[in-house]
Amino acid sequence: MVNRFIRDEKDNSIKHQYQNYSDNKTDHSSENIIITPWEVHGDFEDENYSKLIEKFGTQHISLDLINKIKKITGEVHPLIKFRYFFSHRDLDWILNKYENGEQFYLYTGRGPSGLVHMGHLLPWIFTKYLQEKFNSKLIFQITDDEKFLYNMNFDRNRIKNYVLENILDVIAIGFNPELTKIIVDTEHIKSLYPIAIEIAKKITFSTAKSVFGFNNMTNIGMIGFPPIQAAPCFLPTVLENKPTPVLIPAAIDQDPYWRITRDVAEKLGYYKPAQIHSKFLPGLSNLTKMSSSKPETAIFTTDEPEVVRKKVMSSFTGGQPTVELQKKLGANPDICPVFWYLKYFFDTEKKSIERFYRCRSGNLLCGECKNELANESVIFIKDFKKRREKARDKIAEFMFESR
Amino acid sequence: MVNRFIRDEKDNSIKHQYQNYSDNKTDHSSENIIITPWEVHGDFEDENYSKLIEKFGTQHISLDLINKIKKITGEVHPLIKFRYFFSHRDLDWILNKYENGEQFYLYTGRGPSGLVHMGHLLPWIFTKYLQEKFNSKLIFQITDDEKFLYNMNFDRNRIKNYVLENILDVIAIGFNPELTKIIVDTEHIKSLYPIAIEIAKKITFSTAKSVFGFNNMTNIGMIGFPPIQAAPCFLPTVLENKPTPVLIPAAIDQDPYWRITRDVAEKLGYYKPAQIHSKFLPGLSNLTKMSSSKPETAIFTTDEPEVVRKKVMSSFTGGQPTVELQKKLGANPDICPVFWYLKYFFDTEKKSIERFYRCRSGNLLCGECKNELANESVIFIKDFKKRREKARDKIAEFMFESR
Repeated sequence: MVNRFIRDEKDNSIKHQYQNYSDNKTDHSSENIIITPWEVHGDFEDENYSKLIEKFGTQHISLDLINKIKKITGEVHPLIKFRYFFSHRDLDWILNKYENGEQFYLYTGRGPSGLVHMGHLLPWIFTKYLQEKFNSKLIFQITDDEKFLYNMNFDRNRIKNYVLENILDVIAIGFNPELTKIIVDTEHIKSLYPIAIEIAKKITFSTAKSVFGFNNMTNIGMIGFPPIQAAPCFLPTVLENKPTPVLIPAAIDQDPYWRITRDVAEKLGYYKPAQIHSKFLPGLSNLTKMSSSKPETAIFTTDEPEVVRKKVMSSFTGGQPTVELQKKLGANPDICPVFWYLKYFFDTEKKSIERFYRCRSGNLLCGECKNELANESVIFIKDFKKRREKARDKIAEFMFESR
Repeated sequence: MVNRFIRDEKDNSIKHQYQNYSDNKTDHSSENIIITPWEVHGDFEDENYSKLIEKFGTQHISLDLINKIKKITGEVHPLIKFRYFFSHRDLDWILNKYENGEQFYLYTGRGPSGLVHMGHLLPWIFTKYLQEKFNSKLIFQITDDEKFLYNMNFDRNRIKNYVLENILDVIAIGFNPELTKIIVDTEHIKSLYPIAIEIAKKITFSTAKSVFGFNNMTNIGMIGFPPIQAAPCFLPTVLENKPTPVLIPAAIDQDPYWRITRDVAEKLGYYKPAQIHSKFLPGLSNLTKMSSSKPETAIFTTDEPEVVRKKVMSSFTGGQPTVELQKKLGANPDICPVFWYLKYFFDTEKKSIERFYRCRSGNLLCGECKNELANESVIFIKDFKKRREKARDKIAEFMFESR
């Protein structure tokens, strides 16, 4: 799959570069890849995701591991089957723990730098699935401090508004309120801070610089922040008062946080957090200009139906310039966001495979796919918005209580 | 006054060097001066304190300003008269505010890296005096996070113990409980953190490096910490919901914090904090080895009377090697900790001046001064310990309540 896109955040005046993970080959697409928790640029092909695994030192999700998941849960989630979740650390270890009767926590989160779009929902939908299958407690962290510190033009009120809006989305996913607690950093800092300073004490600026790409112009809030995102990895052990395994489902760009967390975990007497890493889901616009911060490129959970339809119908596709050419030459689903959204959100496995070959053979025109995606998305978003509105009454139920 | 001493903290594995404030003269004493919030080394003579004023960009406390204080309060505190408090920033401004009916907050603090000794008490005694004279609210910050982050061998329990012990000392000073609130960073972080990230966002690593001497080996907790100590400068404005002036009485080594705080204050819509800076009060041991972390060099508020007496009687003095020589040549009160402790704690102005000239002329032997200091200190510490014990029941009354 060629999955070229650029993700960045609007209004940034700080730019961090994570170490370029390309080797010395003249492979232009991989040379241009930048991945930090704050910036993702590049051509994402399967090959490049494989290189990320190598560079970050994570593991492919092997067939053996997929079979192990199937043995325990009785099935394999399509997002694993489709390799949307493609990489892991210690997933086998945490499944062994579970088989030996040790419950694990799930931990994921959201940086409230804007409204939530469909691409954001995939890891959360998967996290909800894991919660159901493993009856796991979940900590969902909202890093309002990070987004305030990173975005030079954001004031605290703007972030506060996003925090509220994003919480509605999280609750609308349908997490079990008895097992799920939302942590907002500035609100629940008292529970994070004592753990964060334990972590911070073990990480030199030199290490943080090489992992996160900090430089002399980085503000000291950003430099001090990573331990705040690391802290929820160890919070379950504090809450349960016994060593408690944690599994983090999240996109691969968050990996730097877990790398430093794993480095210090055992020194501090905690388990290393396990991870399952997803790829990135791009927006709908032209490949060279995709950006989640550009409203026209993403279907937001707050969009009106006619807006959803319009965005989908204006989407970039893998199609040919004319119907005639498409019928003659076929189109390219590998570079088509319409195809991906249908695949990850709405198609069955069988239907997606059929769609792939029909598209390639020229027997499927882009209008048909767009129309299907528009219809499905409108239904999905309408339903999601209803759950989102109901979530307003459930906020207190989901909020973590600091001790 | 020659006031040579070395203060550092035991168990440090990190060393920061504040920019050496010496100029290019071959003045050996000033070349060896290092001042950061975590380390003070050097020969402290009046001349060097003057150089500090120049280097840090603070102001001498002028006669005009002393007269202004006298006009408002009806008197001049001996610690100002004796130039123990020798430097300031915006003290004139804050007195003008006060004269115009605008109340100011006092803010000072303690890094709980050990037990409290008499040297620590002087700025607090002065702060209490200011509280009485100006009817000021006081925020007293205990930086348990900083001391945990700085001292590589300190675990959180060790710090917790010091926090409790130090709080007893603070309360024993006699602050007005209705006007005084103690903030323990890890306990009250929720009230500090939102202000701290506002500050942190405005300070680059480059600035922090040059002000605090951070380097690649500094842990990221230390780099992220300064905004936590800066935050109480702005907290009064949040608490009072209107711009509120703040005056910080503290030793000059804390100045780097206030410098960065003042740099960002107006950008964030706060008043710059005003300061009144004290000199350092050394321990009692040999000049070349003085260190507040060496128990034999300091009279702790928890010392037993016989221990107090023994420490004083073993003190280094400015005396001559023999009684005969002392009678013949006179002694040197300028380098004598026994003289300083008597001067700052127990002597009246008149008595201190007499002592100075009697000492210089050879008409006063060290045994007499030591005996006087021992007697006075035993009475002082006995009384202080009683108040310290009573403080155990007042802790809750003095603790800040996070909102």
